[in-house]
Amino acid sequence: MITVTEAVRLIGENTLTLPITEVTLTAANGSVLREPISADRDFPPFHRVSMDGIAIRFANFQAGEDTFRIEGVQLAGAPPQTLHQNDGCLEVMTGAILPGNTDTVIRYEDLKIFDRNGIRYAHIFAAPKGRMQNVHQRGSDRQAADLLIPAGTLLSPAEIAVIATVGKTTVQVSQPLRVAIISTGDELVEVTEMPLPHQIRQSNSYLLQAALQEQGVKAQRFHLRDDKAALLTELKDLLSRFDALILSGGVSKGKADFIPEVLAELGVQKLFHEVAQRPGKPFWFGRVANGPVVFALPGNPVSTFVCFYKYVRPWVRASLSAPAALVPKAILQEETVFRPDLTYFLPVKVAIGTSGMLTAKPVHIGGSGDFAALLSADGFLELPQKQSTFSVGEVYAFYGFRS
Amino acid sequence: MITVTEAVRLIGENTLTLPITEVTLTAANGSVLREPISADRDFPPFHRVSMDGIAIRFANFQAGEDTFRIEGVQLAGAPPQTLHQNDGCLEVMTGAILPGNTDTVIRYEDLKIFDRNGIRYAHIFAAPKGRMQNVHQRGSDRQAADLLIPAGTLLSPAEIAVIATVGKTTVQVSQPLRVAIISTGDELVEVTEMPLPHQIRQSNSYLLQAALQEQGVKAQRFHLRDDKAALLTELKDLLSRFDALILSGGVSKGKADFIPEVLAELGVQKLFHEVAQRPGKPFWFGRVANGPVVFALPGNPVSTFVCFYKYVRPWVRASLSAPAALVPKAILQEETVFRPDLTYFLPVKVAIGTSGMLTAKPVHIGGSGDFAALLSADGFLELPQKQSTFSVGEVYAFYGFRS
Repeated sequence: MITVTEAVRLIGENTLTLPITEVTLTAANGSVLREPISADRDFPPFHRVSMDGIAIRFANFQAGEDTFRIEGVQLAGAPPQTLHQNDGCLEVMTGAILPGNTDTVIRYEDLKIFDRNGIRYAHIFAAPKGRMQNVHQRGSDRQAADLLIPAGTLLSPAEIAVIATVGKTTVQVSQPLRVAIISTGDELVEVTEMPLPHQIRQSNSYLLQAALQEQGVKAQRFHLRDDKAALLTELKDLLSRFDALILSGGVSKGKADFIPEVLAELGVQKLFHEVAQRPGKPFWFGRVANGPVVFALPGNPVSTFVCFYKYVRPWVRASLSAPAALVPKAILQEETVFRPDLTYFLPVKVAIGTSGMLTAKPVHIGGSGDFAALLSADGFLELPQKQSTFSVGEVYAFYGFRS
Repeated sequence: MITVTEAVRLIGENTLTLPITEVTLTAANGSVLREPISADRDFPPFHRVSMDGIAIRFANFQAGEDTFRIEGVQLAGAPPQTLHQNDGCLEVMTGAILPGNTDTVIRYEDLKIFDRNGIRYAHIFAAPKGRMQNVHQRGSDRQAADLLIPAGTLLSPAEIAVIATVGKTTVQVSQPLRVAIISTGDELVEVTEMPLPHQIRQSNSYLLQAALQEQGVKAQRFHLRDDKAALLTELKDLLSRFDALILSGGVSKGKADFIPEVLAELGVQKLFHEVAQRPGKPFWFGRVANGPVVFALPGNPVSTFVCFYKYVRPWVRASLSAPAALVPKAILQEETVFRPDLTYFLPVKVAIGTSGMLTAKPVHIGGSGDFAALLSADGFLELPQKQSTFSVGEVYAFYGFRS
């Protein structure tokens, strides 16, 4: 039996590096970028007017002029005009290019426009502070060829917008992970079936499929019977077609738990079996040398949940080359005693406390089979192994499973 | 001009109630449940063995017996067997039904199995604590017909698993929101085009599409020219086909900003225009009576971002009938002075501090056009209007835009 820390380390040493694939920009959100994105031109690409108003040459204002004849309008998207007269100005719109021979924008709020003999004038009553006022200057944010987004970035809407701006319609990202979810256990029947009194419908594979979907992974579900020969054939096939197998059930000490034995015969090297934690102690992890990894999770739903969010999700993220997610912390709201020499994952409901910090209230749960209780929980607190009394106000890592 | 609080209130009064639709369970994660889910039978549905070991009748142990002849094996998924002899036991596997005439399970760790004259026996060396030890009793978690998941729940993997367990393969959820994203502004060209020096590629509509996608909304993008007649025709059509229009650009005071005028002509009632905030002040919001809503967001990317995460996202969630998301708080790490009488949305990068609380470091940004700076930010702090100095250590609401 190994510790949680050791399990995390071993799993972290066995992440994959997925090949690169090209996707359209509109399909790229949530993927991990595998190429650097650079500016194709300056940001902004021109002196960009940032307020609606008028553009003047600042020197003319300094020379004592405060009323300017309007020579025309510079609209956003129109080619640049040029100011002709020292006592002239051009109306300018946000997003427009700054007209030639002007260097300062005065917004409408700071001037008064009036008509005299059919000619329009702008009178400035709030002095401009200096040249380039209300002008977003060319290249002031980024210069052409600057690196904007390094490879390895998890793409969010901000990156999608920047990639659009530089004119890329496709982008290189990590290939999708191929994950097989395999439920085992003869007590399980399909969701569509009416179970006999001693049977239950399978639910863990749905849980895992939905949780993987939230990580952008489209996983396939399989159900295998507790039959050694069938397991050998089927698992061999799945190992050849997937990057990861997630098995649910079949790893405790029971008579019909052939999984570790079958995996060994198929060349899957055991990296550990049993982690000093509750729930989820019988967790088994292994890998085919330079090949797919196998997470064999304990079959009860609460253990499956804990193992997924603590171990599988970070592995998925790392294998997609994404940076690790922040693990928030939460303040325990109720004294909790747990004596066994195990890390304890406590189901909790969280809220935002008066201090602004996350608070975590334990959800009382009937045992690791009581997954209906998870409906009232938002995630788990990780309570460390070498401690048995956890007091109100103490702060622990929180693994959330809701968005 | 109205306050941020007032804007939130007006938008909140104009959420929609979407019709109900039926989807398959595997497509339901992230949707909002619109029917209650009840237990179809007891949870667990039978006295369920929760440890591998042997099952005995506790009274026999109390009567002094500590070694039991193994009569057989009760596997998970197999119909129940019955114990025949007082000095007998049955091996039982996790997930199996508790055999008839037994009431207690002793795990393998607490016994020794041996063979005598070809007959197998189990000797118990750690006394069971009482009846029903290591048995997850029928109906102990939930009883048949108990409400498990109320309507209005945002479905996450935990709910998907429970719905599978009760045997439902389809589920009633809110219909998808139909959202049109409309960019305007003649300075914008398509991503595929090479912009002239005074033009830029459109990016806001990609940003909004990606951000909506994260809320489960598949939005369509449109680009309209700054031409009043065309805007009238196109917007009329879009108002008849969508639940919400999100316009980007066209709401400042400029010459070519026809949008509010055109919307008024089309019967969209203005609910507000201009919010006392930076960035995003020119934000316009309206609605056709009992019909679609229109968010007309300022055209610069940082304003678009702020308005989406502060206003549009909560509206989307409420219109899907989902409960409001928790808004976390973060500790400001750098003194910030902002004097205008406006709510200030400060771009920040967050981390988990030593106290376990989120910390927020301001990201210095060139102005509301500098959206490349958003690449270094994780979200915005909302700094209240009636304050101008924000000190290190103060705690403010954080709107994040990364997962």
